[in-house]
Amino acid sequence: MTDSTGENEAGYRTEYDSMGEVRVPAQAKWRAQTQRAVENFPLSGQRLERAHIEALARIKAAAAVVNARLGVLDQERADAVRAAAEEVAEGRWDGHFPVDVFQTGSGTSSNMNMNEVLATLATERLAAAGAEAPSVHPNDHVNASQSSNDVFPSSIHIAATAAVTADLIPALEHLVRALEGKASEFAGVVKSGRTHLMDATPVTLGQEFGGYAAQMRYGVERLRAALPRLAELPLGGTAVGTGINTPPGFAPAVIEEVARSTGLPLTEARDHFEAQGARDALVETSGQLRTVAVGLTKICNDLRWMASGPRTGLAEIALPDLQPGSSIMPGKVNPVVPEAVLMVAAQVTGNDATVAAAGAAGNFELNVMLPVIAKNLLESVRLLANAARLLADRTVDGITANAERARQFAESSPSVVTPLNKYIGYENAAAVAKRAMAEQLTIREAVLASGHVERGELTLEQLDEALDVLRMTHP
Amino acid sequence: MTDSTGENEAGYRTEYDSMGEVRVPAQAKWRAQTQRAVENFPLSGQRLERAHIEALARIKAAAAVVNARLGVLDQERADAVRAAAEEVAEGRWDGHFPVDVFQTGSGTSSNMNMNEVLATLATERLAAAGAEAPSVHPNDHVNASQSSNDVFPSSIHIAATAAVTADLIPALEHLVRALEGKASEFAGVVKSGRTHLMDATPVTLGQEFGGYAAQMRYGVERLRAALPRLAELPLGGTAVGTGINTPPGFAPAVIEEVARSTGLPLTEARDHFEAQGARDALVETSGQLRTVAVGLTKICNDLRWMASGPRTGLAEIALPDLQPGSSIMPGKVNPVVPEAVLMVAAQVTGNDATVAAAGAAGNFELNVMLPVIAKNLLESVRLLANAARLLADRTVDGITANAERARQFAESSPSVVTPLNKYIGYENAAAVAKRAMAEQLTIREAVLASGHVERGELTLEQLDEALDVLRMTHP
Amino acid sequence: MTDSTGENEAGYRTEYDSMGEVRVPAQAKWRAQTQRAVENFPLSGQRLERAHIEALARIKAAAAVVNARLGVLDQERADAVRAAAEEVAEGRWDGHFPVDVFQTGSGTSSNMNMNEVLATLATERLAAAGAEAPSVHPNDHVNASQSSNDVFPSSIHIAATAAVTADLIPALEHLVRALEGKASEFAGVVKSGRTHLMDATPVTLGQEFGGYAAQMRYGVERLRAALPRLAELPLGGTAVGTGINTPPGFAPAVIEEVARSTGLPLTEARDHFEAQGARDALVETSGQLRTVAVGLTKICNDLRWMASGPRTGLAEIALPDLQPGSSIMPGKVNPVVPEAVLMVAAQVTGNDATVAAAGAAGNFELNVMLPVIAKNLLESVRLLANAARLLADRTVDGITANAERARQFAESSPSVVTPLNKYIGYENAAAVAKRAMAEQLTIREAVLASGHVERGELTLEQLDEALDVLRMTHP
Amino acid sequence: MTDSTGENEAGYRTEYDSMGEVRVPAQAKWRAQTQRAVENFPLSGQRLERAHIEALARIKAAAAVVNARLGVLDQERADAVRAAAEEVAEGRWDGHFPVDVFQTGSGTSSNMNMNEVLATLATERLAAAGAEAPSVHPNDHVNASQSSNDVFPSSIHIAATAAVTADLIPALEHLVRALEGKASEFAGVVKSGRTHLMDATPVTLGQEFGGYAAQMRYGVERLRAALPRLAELPLGGTAVGTGINTPPGFAPAVIEEVARSTGLPLTEARDHFEAQGARDALVETSGQLRTVAVGLTKICNDLRWMASGPRTGLAEIALPDLQPGSSIMPGKVNPVVPEAVLMVAAQVTGNDATVAAAGAAGNFELNVMLPVIAKNLLESVRLLANAARLLADRTVDGITANAERARQFAESSPSVVTPLNKYIGYENAAAVAKRAMAEQLTIREAVLASGHVERGELTLEQLDEALDVLRMTHP
Repeated sequence: MTDSTGENEAGYRTEYDSMGEVRVPAQAKWRAQTQRAVENFPLSGQRLERAHIEALARIKAAAAVVNARLGVLDQERADAVRAAAEEVAEGRWDGHFPVDVFQTGSGTSSNMNMNEVLATLATERLAAAGAEAPSVHPNDHVNASQSSNDVFPSSIHIAATAAVTADLIPALEHLVRALEGKASEFAGVVKSGRTHLMDATPVTLGQEFGGYAAQMRYGVERLRAALPRLAELPLGGTAVGTGINTPPGFAPAVIEEVARSTGLPLTEARDHFEAQGARDALVETSGQLRTVAVGLTKICNDLRWMASGPRTGLAEIALPDLQPGSSIMPGKVNPVVPEAVLMVAAQVTGNDATVAAAGAAGNFELNVMLPVIAKNLLESVRLLANAARLLADRTVDGITANAERARQFAESSPSVVTPLNKYIGYENAAAVAKRAMAEQLTIREAVLASGHVERGELTLEQLDEALDVLRMTHP
Repeated sequence: MTDSTGENEAGYRTEYDSMGEVRVPAQAKWRAQTQRAVENFPLSGQRLERAHIEALARIKAAAAVVNARLGVLDQERADAVRAAAEEVAEGRWDGHFPVDVFQTGSGTSSNMNMNEVLATLATERLAAAGAEAPSVHPNDHVNASQSSNDVFPSSIHIAATAAVTADLIPALEHLVRALEGKASEFAGVVKSGRTHLMDATPVTLGQEFGGYAAQMRYGVERLRAALPRLAELPLGGTAVGTGINTPPGFAPAVIEEVARSTGLPLTEARDHFEAQGARDALVETSGQLRTVAVGLTKICNDLRWMASGPRTGLAEIALPDLQPGSSIMPGKVNPVVPEAVLMVAAQVTGNDATVAAAGAAGNFELNVMLPVIAKNLLESVRLLANAARLLADRTVDGITANAERARQFAESSPSVVTPLNKYIGYENAAAVAKRAMAEQLTIREAVLASGHVERGELTLEQLDEALDVLRMTHP
Repeated sequence: MTDSTGENEAGYRTEYDSMGEVRVPAQAKWRAQTQRAVENFPLSGQRLERAHIEALARIKAAAAVVNARLGVLDQERADAVRAAAEEVAEGRWDGHFPVDVFQTGSGTSSNMNMNEVLATLATERLAAAGAEAPSVHPNDHVNASQSSNDVFPSSIHIAATAAVTADLIPALEHLVRALEGKASEFAGVVKSGRTHLMDATPVTLGQEFGGYAAQMRYGVERLRAALPRLAELPLGGTAVGTGINTPPGFAPAVIEEVARSTGLPLTEARDHFEAQGARDALVETSGQLRTVAVGLTKICNDLRWMASGPRTGLAEIALPDLQPGSSIMPGKVNPVVPEAVLMVAAQVTGNDATVAAAGAAGNFELNVMLPVIAKNLLESVRLLANAARLLADRTVDGITANAERARQFAESSPSVVTPLNKYIGYENAAAVAKRAMAEQLTIREAVLASGHVERGELTLEQLDEALDVLRMTHP
Repeated sequence: MTDSTGENEAGYRTEYDSMGEVRVPAQAKWRAQTQRAVENFPLSGQRLERAHIEALARIKAAAAVVNARLGVLDQERADAVRAAAEEVAEGRWDGHFPVDVFQTGSGTSSNMNMNEVLATLATERLAAAGAEAPSVHPNDHVNASQSSNDVFPSSIHIAATAAVTADLIPALEHLVRALEGKASEFAGVVKSGRTHLMDATPVTLGQEFGGYAAQMRYGVERLRAALPRLAELPLGGTAVGTGINTPPGFAPAVIEEVARSTGLPLTEARDHFEAQGARDALVETSGQLRTVAVGLTKICNDLRWMASGPRTGLAEIALPDLQPGSSIMPGKVNPVVPEAVLMVAAQVTGNDATVAAAGAAGNFELNVMLPVIAKNLLESVRLLANAARLLADRTVDGITANAERARQFAESSPSVVTPLNKYIGYENAAAVAKRAMAEQLTIREAVLASGHVERGELTLEQLDEALDVLRMTHP
């Protein structure tokens, strides 16, 4: 932040607030309260998520428009604030939001950071436009009709709704398509099923990939199921949910404006006291993200194990080769993308624990763990979206099947004896299976060696039909 | 278990399975495989949840009916199995399910326990009915067309769907009604809002209780949102999802039968490979339970703090007096039910962590953490339902407000100065607030003492209207 | 509880406390306050852990002795209370502790349950001894010099210290011995190492089991490292840490007495305000249990994978056969004990989350989540101890190695080419490895086929020495 | 990263590895494998923690020294690598470590990033020194005698040991001193104790702060208790724990060298197979960090509640005023630092869940969740250290007591009646307490009003001594 605002070259200027003077980097667009927060919270070095800044700016732009319409703000200032907020939303002033994400629990410092930056930018814009341009005040003008307590949590809900609908759901759908593609491609690749990690009756590799695709489709359903509550905004409640100091009609108009500018299905909170005091909808959404992470964990572990080997593992599939393996062990290629996705899943699980602990910590009219909830929730969405795309593009799409080995496994599993029950009975079938294991035979060889065909209990044709492992996958 | 089956008096009998003989308590309805499991898993002393046993029995009853209809089972045996299963479902044989919940991860031991008990009961029933009655076999008859791998997870989904819809949702709705009752009753009780635990502008106690009611109503919505996936059953997939050894039409008919007998909206899995390999819907449901627990945590903490005192706390409300306090400190009454509910919430949070870890541990065609998922999920539902009812009946219903003290607080909060801005300006308002704090005055006293009325800046009437704290709660 | 106390046969009696009369089952040893708690907390149906009841009784016995010595209690009553407490400690009255574990957060209900049962038993004992025997009062006599707020958490620390030192540590040491036994037995079984699940350079199976043994030895170290803080008792702090109403010397004397009767290294809290307000030592201990669970998870997953197959998995080892597998698939044996241990590990992880959440919920002079902390912590210790023993006795001890297959794997891993670098160079070695993979050769075959020996780059002897996979495990 | 390495101005150069060519930013010190990793893992945008890079560099410097001593590396190259590594350790090349922390689970990409940067820097250094200077190879020279599998986890242990001993423990000790300072300062400030949030017998504010100091001192003990295992390094195990391709004596010498250069108590792993396969010591350490976070949560909640008000809360203490409160509500100051610390504690709790899940995910000779473990563990240490210092400096040091109000509370608590038992009996004391509550009297007033002094049951002197609340805090 220091570099981007240039105070090293140009030094500092002095700003004031109700507690006195503060030295601010000369070129910083922020003012006193932001600077105090920078100094008060030297904790993580991490700032708000980009998507969060954008959502907050979208609210400020809409509030300026509506405040002008309702006569709370003159049109000139409103236009300047709106224009400035749109620039911030587009990412042009990211370097001017230096407040640590670990700050006051209401996010007031970040709300004031936004108010101050927009006040500066809007004032500069008005100054550039005319000689006697009025100045724009962070609180009286930018924050008019608002409170951190309704605006900041609203910005989290907007950012999360946007990230889920515009980033994560499309990414999961992209992964679904990749998995479905493989489900079709591998529809005829028969392999041994595994339960308890032990040999079971056959499935096709395509059925397995179809199951993975279904898991991710359900993930999309889960996220959609939470959206009605996630997309509800506390806006309009101001300080404690009563809406003190807000003109009638402000909240619905601002929400409509933000919904329009973002294309999101945003609505006003059905109960403004729930909406200020509780953050349950964020906890719920985090739980759904965690469920997606759980699903990805299962899929990536299956992929890693199926690709294990090449000589001492299962080696039923091969993953694309992305980077050289060990310098010592030539030919070693590791399932690096599934590993990275597993780490993402572990991170999302931990982030979810943080969100839940923070969500339970509210008291009365405010939850003061908002920034840490926002950080963890939005990071989880972003990580999962990136992971889903990466898994699709750099792993799933390039998977090839070792169809011959897979079929060999399917045929060698003692469990394929199951359909013979009707010809030779369960007892004899069990004896065949045991013989196959003991003498290292296939079930077919063991049936022949045991004389069941010779004795006419079933014909060779019947035997081959019964032992057709592909047929067993579609009984 | 020892006592209830009487082996101490009557000794043991010998049972057999494919591994040889097993000594079983003489009067036990279970057989060899159950007994092996009892001996193999001396881990927790905890058994399956009652609701889980019932669900498993419901499947067996329905399977018997459908197996008879499809010609897999003769009508006589089917009737006997169905009748026995209904008795088990009703709880008449609970002592005969001794297998530890920490057992084989597929729940096969519990499925075999059920198969064995039903085989014994059905055989006894047939024997009682006629001289040459056939015997009923645990696997060939009771388990016909089924596998532990589809039946056991189906029983979890059924038990959880039943518990959520018939126990937890009604309990939460009961709590909602209790909270709404207080929201009405306390609609006129004005009090100080609190943000960051600091004095803020006024709210009514009724608004706060209305917010709590909304939290719990959303909890019901959340559970309903997960039901479509929770109510999907893996039934019909048998060993690995392919449905090997199941006659056509079996699964839909059994599901319809169970849906009819339980009144639950059960459906067949849309993808049987997802349904066998993943338990994501249970993880999702657990996440929703956790969100309800988070909501209860917030509510109970608010109640505890509002009731704190009687002399050194907030003392805005009084909770009903349920049991004597300390033997040393007369008059001490503690918020024992909110405390118990907070402990339930902590337990549900931990149970959820277990469910998520277990849900992520599946491989290929089976998740082998099923019993621990079932235990934690069903326990959470049961605890939350009991806690919600208890909180409603033994705490919320009996809450009384200390309206006078609450109003005094509302009026003494420096934040009530806010509406005076338009008469005396923000600067003067701030000075009034500071004077009030410094001289231990109410804001009204400080305004008068500062001469604003005397100087005609506002009339006494305007002052009283502006400082009307109840009006501030509905601006 | 109903059955064991016989109120169904004999009806009810009436007891009184400061809130009035209460109907108590006629034969119950408990009195009014216990009965109120039974009715106030119909939540889980679970009671305190047995070990917890015992620890509480041990404190009461010791307190009676010390109270007599300090003149707070007459010798006659003290002897009677001590004798009754010893019977309770030994488990003779377990049916008389009916209070739900989800109760008041201080555990006062359970402390009063103990006080009441001991008062009844001691009074009965005195009555049996003589005509004019005095009665014993739950508070004035049994609870003398104590408060729930110091006694109840002390009982948790004692129970946990006992369970860790007398149950879990020996169980882990038992498992260590079993693993070390296999480390020796398998010292010569060479196999392919696996990193990223991919073939790597060789290790011995014994080295792997030695690593597992080390993990569990470290587990014992971890538990021992937490003991100094776990074994510190809040006793003597009474209501708020100040020790009000406790005679001088009471706490050290009681602690010495309990330490003597239990053989545990108990000490008095170094700071009584930390000891009343915080339960950090229980959270720490839970964290150590969780670490042991993490270690067991790794071990059990390795065992399950090494035993996977028999035909389509790794099949490097075989686990003992404990119970018949699927009724459909003959010969199927599942790794049921490792699965059960994995479920225990998942439970311990969730229990730990509950303990941590509860541990963070204290306020001022008391944490009111004590019973739920106790339940989860003590359950985790018990489950881990049982799981460690079971894993040792029913799985590890019976493991056999498939040494031939393991060696074949070791030799077939392309990574064994590594030691040839010094003879033929890294580039040629890489070419050999690729040829081996492409043509399905062993590395030795590929070296010969590539002419390196023929060309005299190394002798056959050198080749065989370099490719000696067992030697590679002890370079 | 793009900006700092200048490829936009100067374009790209081409590098090669065994998979072919890669375009690398022209001024980047890294090479092909790093670049592949940058492209393979576009996941989080987060890099390794600075402390982690430093630890890795310290190992490389020491390895160069020891490799030269053992004849594995010529002195010239060794000196160049060591010098380059020291520059990296000091932070001079931070912009050249662009690999995402979510990458291959072994951290190989980051190890190769380090090898490549050091190779480039060392080669440049040698080139600058002389005409025919040899080039330095990332694998053959920088990575000689090492493998990612032992070096990367070793770097985590070193970084964590350093961060715990040099950053977190001093920060906690700093906080302890601040708390102890207040414990002394407030030794005479008597206040009402609170249990169940209800009025209890008195304590001093100093006793409470002494308890907080003790909690943090125990935190230091906990961290020290884990150090012996945290400070053990897998170094020397190379690929799978056997130490293949490492010269005798390498590991102890490198560890001694790193211990010397860092001043840390590092040791070699007691069992190299545990050390490669398991990361339990990191899970344990994370658990201890979580316990510290739990302790901070309790302390910060107490501080927030004691400072609540100014009018409608407890208002027993005042926190220093750090930044202006709400623009609407003049005089509102929020406990922003305790809030930020509570968010840190929630983050550490979630990070711990990630570490535990990742720690349980190892298989055979490697845990492939290393980078995510490192990220979460090191972030937690850093956050806690910063939070402890901030809490001490910006909150604890500036706390002032509202001694008069606190004493008033202590005296008004009905529980102060307790010491009167010996004069007027428990029954009369209870009646006094009830009268005090009912008639809004202090206990002293109620005793006088009830005539106990008048009737000579105790003298005024005795009454005042018994009701001396400060004396009750040191009975």
